[in-house]
Amino acid sequence: MSSLNKKFPRLLPEPIKKGMKVSDLIDTAFKAYNGGRLAEACRLFTEKMIAREGTVGMSLTGALTPAGLGRAAIAPLMKAGFVDWIISTGANLYHDLHFGLDMHLYAGSPFLNDVDLRRDGVIRIYDVLFDYDVLLDTDAFVRNVIQGPEFQKTMATDEFHHLLGKYVYLREKKLGIKETSVLSTAYQYGVPIFTSSPGDSSIGMNVAAMALRDSKLLIDVNRDVNQTAAIVYAAKSGGNTSSVFILGGGSPKNFMLQTEPQIQEVMGIEERGHDYFLQCTDARPDTGGLSGATPGEAVSWGKIDPDQLPGTVICYTDSTIGLPLLTAYVLARHAPRKLKRLYDRRPELMERLKKAYYTSGRAAEVGSKR
Amino acid sequence: MSSLNKKFPRLLPEPIKKGMKVSDLIDTAFKAYNGGRLAEACRLFTEKMIAREGTVGMSLTGALTPAGLGRAAIAPLMKAGFVDWIISTGANLYHDLHFGLDMHLYAGSPFLNDVDLRRDGVIRIYDVLFDYDVLLDTDAFVRNVIQGPEFQKTMATDEFHHLLGKYVYLREKKLGIKETSVLSTAYQYGVPIFTSSPGDSSIGMNVAAMALRDSKLLIDVNRDVNQTAAIVYAAKSGGNTSSVFILGGGSPKNFMLQTEPQIQEVMGIEERGHDYFLQCTDARPDTGGLSGATPGEAVSWGKIDPDQLPGTVICYTDSTIGLPLLTAYVLARHAPRKLKRLYDRRPELMERLKKAYYTSGRAAEVGSKR
Amino acid sequence: MSSLNKKFPRLLPEPIKKGMKVSDLIDTAFKAYNGGRLAEACRLFTEKMIAREGTVGMSLTGALTPAGLGRAAIAPLMKAGFVDWIISTGANLYHDLHFGLDMHLYAGSPFLNDVDLRRDGVIRIYDVLFDYDVLLDTDAFVRNVIQGPEFQKTMATDEFHHLLGKYVYLREKKLGIKETSVLSTAYQYGVPIFTSSPGDSSIGMNVAAMALRDSKLLIDVNRDVNQTAAIVYAAKSGGNTSSVFILGGGSPKNFMLQTEPQIQEVMGIEERGHDYFLQCTDARPDTGGLSGATPGEAVSWGKIDPDQLPGTVICYTDSTIGLPLLTAYVLARHAPRKLKRLYDRRPELMERLKKAYYTSGRAAEVGSKR
Amino acid sequence: MSSLNKKFPRLLPEPIKKGMKVSDLIDTAFKAYNGGRLAEACRLFTEKMIAREGTVGMSLTGALTPAGLGRAAIAPLMKAGFVDWIISTGANLYHDLHFGLDMHLYAGSPFLNDVDLRRDGVIRIYDVLFDYDVLLDTDAFVRNVIQGPEFQKTMATDEFHHLLGKYVYLREKKLGIKETSVLSTAYQYGVPIFTSSPGDSSIGMNVAAMALRDSKLLIDVNRDVNQTAAIVYAAKSGGNTSSVFILGGGSPKNFMLQTEPQIQEVMGIEERGHDYFLQCTDARPDTGGLSGATPGEAVSWGKIDPDQLPGTVICYTDSTIGLPLLTAYVLARHAPRKLKRLYDRRPELMERLKKAYYTSGRAAEVGSKR
Repeated sequence: MSSLNKKFPRLLPEPIKKGMKVSDLIDTAFKAYNGGRLAEACRLFTEKMIAREGTVGMSLTGALTPAGLGRAAIAPLMKAGFVDWIISTGANLYHDLHFGLDMHLYAGSPFLNDVDLRRDGVIRIYDVLFDYDVLLDTDAFVRNVIQGPEFQKTMATDEFHHLLGKYVYLREKKLGIKETSVLSTAYQYGVPIFTSSPGDSSIGMNVAAMALRDSKLLIDVNRDVNQTAAIVYAAKSGGNTSSVFILGGGSPKNFMLQTEPQIQEVMGIEERGHDYFLQCTDARPDTGGLSGATPGEAVSWGKIDPDQLPGTVICYTDSTIGLPLLTAYVLARHAPRKLKRLYDRRPELMERLKKAYYTSGRAAEVGSKR
Repeated sequence: MSSLNKKFPRLLPEPIKKGMKVSDLIDTAFKAYNGGRLAEACRLFTEKMIAREGTVGMSLTGALTPAGLGRAAIAPLMKAGFVDWIISTGANLYHDLHFGLDMHLYAGSPFLNDVDLRRDGVIRIYDVLFDYDVLLDTDAFVRNVIQGPEFQKTMATDEFHHLLGKYVYLREKKLGIKETSVLSTAYQYGVPIFTSSPGDSSIGMNVAAMALRDSKLLIDVNRDVNQTAAIVYAAKSGGNTSSVFILGGGSPKNFMLQTEPQIQEVMGIEERGHDYFLQCTDARPDTGGLSGATPGEAVSWGKIDPDQLPGTVICYTDSTIGLPLLTAYVLARHAPRKLKRLYDRRPELMERLKKAYYTSGRAAEVGSKR
Repeated sequence: MSSLNKKFPRLLPEPIKKGMKVSDLIDTAFKAYNGGRLAEACRLFTEKMIAREGTVGMSLTGALTPAGLGRAAIAPLMKAGFVDWIISTGANLYHDLHFGLDMHLYAGSPFLNDVDLRRDGVIRIYDVLFDYDVLLDTDAFVRNVIQGPEFQKTMATDEFHHLLGKYVYLREKKLGIKETSVLSTAYQYGVPIFTSSPGDSSIGMNVAAMALRDSKLLIDVNRDVNQTAAIVYAAKSGGNTSSVFILGGGSPKNFMLQTEPQIQEVMGIEERGHDYFLQCTDARPDTGGLSGATPGEAVSWGKIDPDQLPGTVICYTDSTIGLPLLTAYVLARHAPRKLKRLYDRRPELMERLKKAYYTSGRAAEVGSKR
Repeated sequence: MSSLNKKFPRLLPEPIKKGMKVSDLIDTAFKAYNGGRLAEACRLFTEKMIAREGTVGMSLTGALTPAGLGRAAIAPLMKAGFVDWIISTGANLYHDLHFGLDMHLYAGSPFLNDVDLRRDGVIRIYDVLFDYDVLLDTDAFVRNVIQGPEFQKTMATDEFHHLLGKYVYLREKKLGIKETSVLSTAYQYGVPIFTSSPGDSSIGMNVAAMALRDSKLLIDVNRDVNQTAAIVYAAKSGGNTSSVFILGGGSPKNFMLQTEPQIQEVMGIEERGHDYFLQCTDARPDTGGLSGATPGEAVSWGKIDPDQLPGTVICYTDSTIGLPLLTAYVLARHAPRKLKRLYDRRPELMERLKKAYYTSGRAAEVGSKR
């Protein structure tokens, strides 16, 4: 007989009972396959990622805010101090605005006739429906806001989203609603939100159209690249862990992971990679997208610390299932953390990175090879 | 402005809070995409499928019992009277035996070296591990049991599994354990369990090897086909609904759905199809497997009542996530039902089907076409 | 610099040109990801599986014959001597009958209204369409044939399909058509075809309904289990390789792979597992189905020879793409082989297996454990 | 009997024969499921998208250039005049540089130990391998080039990639190699290449690091948004079709599709949407990503012309399989087209869009709503 019993727990769950809490069900009945991975993800987040001041970055792709998960899950995670910085698609932030502006989205169906919807002025995001006016009114809000004087300059997306979040927050107060929006919550709690593709979404589209008028707003992509690397470098050089919590994949996943090669490969600063890696996705490794690339592959790039490979979990399930379960679990099992308010520390973090870059010697090497 | 608000509920979930129950989280935060489908599945099961004496058939594919879901979820659903009959792969029943015989499975990892495992006598089912002796001892149990005189005949799989379940039940009592096994629970609660591929699994393999000795046990596949159709026909002709709850897909899915064409197309009896359809799967419709075939496609075959197409849900998520959630939901939201004990009624049900077949005229038509 | 150049070929494909042959395109431009796997699969089949008298078993799941691949690809592979035995779902054989009987299927669309189709008597298999009469007439053909005296007995599915194939072949000749059908081709070329779920399909449904009349036809599942093991044992004990070519997954995949545990675990005969493993599927390992289980996992069960793990390829693509490409490749790159006509050798193969079983000692152990 | 034969072709493929050409195999044997979709995609591209001066945009995601498809397929399509403009991830352009600089990538395996690879300085992209020096040397090339005076300004990505492409082209000439690189080919053939996430890739990382030194290079995201819309507007307002050919999905997919809402919703110019839509992906519509969103959903947004919905195809297969097949097909079935050289016309196209925007009245409305 082997020594399995010394290395692994026996698999013998108790029968599910009436009235179980989410955290108990996950600990009891999620034992294998993606159920097992989801339980591991919950424990990784609770016991490792948010332990001991660890910095947690979250990337958002897929229609999370249209599905209501901005309000239901992402904002509560920020408020509990469990998510310190965010990289999001523009679409998730654009649709987040509807909630902050008290516009109405509806839980519909994916099986409707789109030609009819187009005729009736209804917009469909899979099974989420809303009127075309929601787009036009949200666009008008964006254009109105970015006409303000504080927007007439070149800035990074964290600053842009912070300023935008302030106006959402003010609108919420005026409307007498609260806890509706990721942008507003991030503004209040000092969580920096970046986007890796600033032109890609209705926010970017309106910024671009305004640039054909007299707007001076331009996104400084370089600052985003360096500022995100600065957040990770500050965590790691300060003796803390850096964790990535990836919902979906896409460009935000890569943008979050590339912080480490930016530090090591491009800036020549010695580092070992992110410590913990948690992804909820349906993307597979074999079909060519970075979305499905494994933590193992990321190790070969220096994105993930090879010693931490056990601290990585991919759960292949829909974020609309995985995220609320994980949120309920971690809120049940861990007390809120002190907020890091990384947004308030952006100049300081950048200075630390620049200093390390200038002293690494790589900056001086520019162009010297080949 | 459109009339969306008259047709669909507003999508505005409350923030997730500490200590939430499974049923409340699903009702609150599962609004769209597969999260939305899972919530619909929970409500379909609770409000339609088990309402008013409806008959519920469940098909089991994928490694459910190895993942502990036999004990955690399937047995509790049977005991609450929520599942009336089952079609399972042989593998799920074979691995269920390990639990009934108090053998040990372990929650391991999918990332182990299989050549090492083979050398060490460890069997791996993805991330579930156990010793090779578990197979040998389970095989010996099966061979021992089927040597008994009641097994020396041709029989359908529901009878075979009922007899086998009796011996598991007796072993459980002897070992002082309970609520461990699907087979034992089905035996006690009168739930017939069929398999669509009786030779395909270690149970079938041992039955086959014994047939090279002096065993007289032979599976009557024809009886299975007709008996499953008889269960559905009894439900529908008695004025009740017939629902299918499909975990995974595969041959058991088709075997469950083909009951309706067996009644209509082959036996010439007027019928309209199953009423409710609930599937939890990762199989997509476009890649060619029946596993991924939609309820819509099933309508064209007469497998699903076209008037009931709204009463169908496919949730694309792992059963190891979907099944415990659905089980917790329905146990929280619906009182146990009176058991149907369909196993005890098998001769009567078959007689009703035969009578309808003989009077349909189709039996007399045999071979008259073309 | 590493020694990559010593271990792996440089990845530098030539530009695709007008008029390329399938085999050249695959060798030139399929270098990585599933394209790379498909090229490896083509070479594994051509250079290893059909080399030196190796025995090749093929399992068929998914709607292959409805997609026309029976005629286009499976029959040509049998005729070239590249496929020696088959395990198929019943559905693939049932729909193969339409082609042999010169009935008409149509290349339609997956986006039709199924309620309308049901009303109009049109059956849909995803994007394949045909009239309801095709089902009724095929059913009548099956019932007519199985009324014959040679069917009035208990038999294994290879014999059943051989007899059925003979009637398809005779019908083809009468209709003046040829090369239409898998069943007819298998009959002519001596390729045994098994099914792992004999009741699951319209063929099994009609056999079952006839059993309620006076038919004596009953499938001997035990014989199927042992006969498939006998084919593999004959190959391996004769010093040849045994390869599995799996399209899709499902019960036929397991039925094909379990031949090795039947030999080793159940019958106690020393063996090492199949040599080569080639699968074309969309099933992933993490979602619980055996369809997605990897060759690595199969090693831990003794299904695959651990020394041959490099000789295994899974290509995650639709069989409707992978199978015609692979067929075109192997027909271009390898001359036809001498037919094995394993059907003609069924009693002899079974005798060899029985003899090994009786001498292994396992038969005498029955029931002695625990 | 229905009238299927009047609406759909009979499904009866000829047997596959030795030595078949790619285009013949696709027309003959690809009849249903994703095989059928791939054949439809080939015909849509050949008969509709490139017919009559239609403008074709291609979006690149997933590891296409690392898989060698830049040289094998994308460059030949540009040279034949079949692809007029491109949106790519930064990663595809970065890894394209290796080919243009004659660095060596290797066709490896996905099953290697990443901790060992990290130690040995080997980088893995799934099954593509190369030395860490390839990254460092490519980075150095990028840094060297962008130090040049023509890069010391704010510019859009099409201009940036054109300038970069020029230097790749010069390097190719110096090295005596040709037809190696997407960037070089696009430079020579006047095909504009955009990226939707300019900071996300090693190219963007190096640009960002240089900005911490004295580099003045900054990407003008607004110009990218407007210039891509200008290309589509020029095609449509000139009476031609606009088609999208999407490999994968991700941010480039949305960036390509949003050109239409930019024209209609944001700029207030009357338009109807793209005409033809062809996507090769593994992303499903139900899991929340825009990658999997269907053309139908895009109709509800005005991204796709509702009258053209039949002119849309999604083929669920790996681009590493689908792209070489489609390339071989279209090169066999259609003569090369006259190059559009859209890069050379960028100022003119932008002027046309600006003029339409200024006259639509939407520009004057800014901020007037709510």
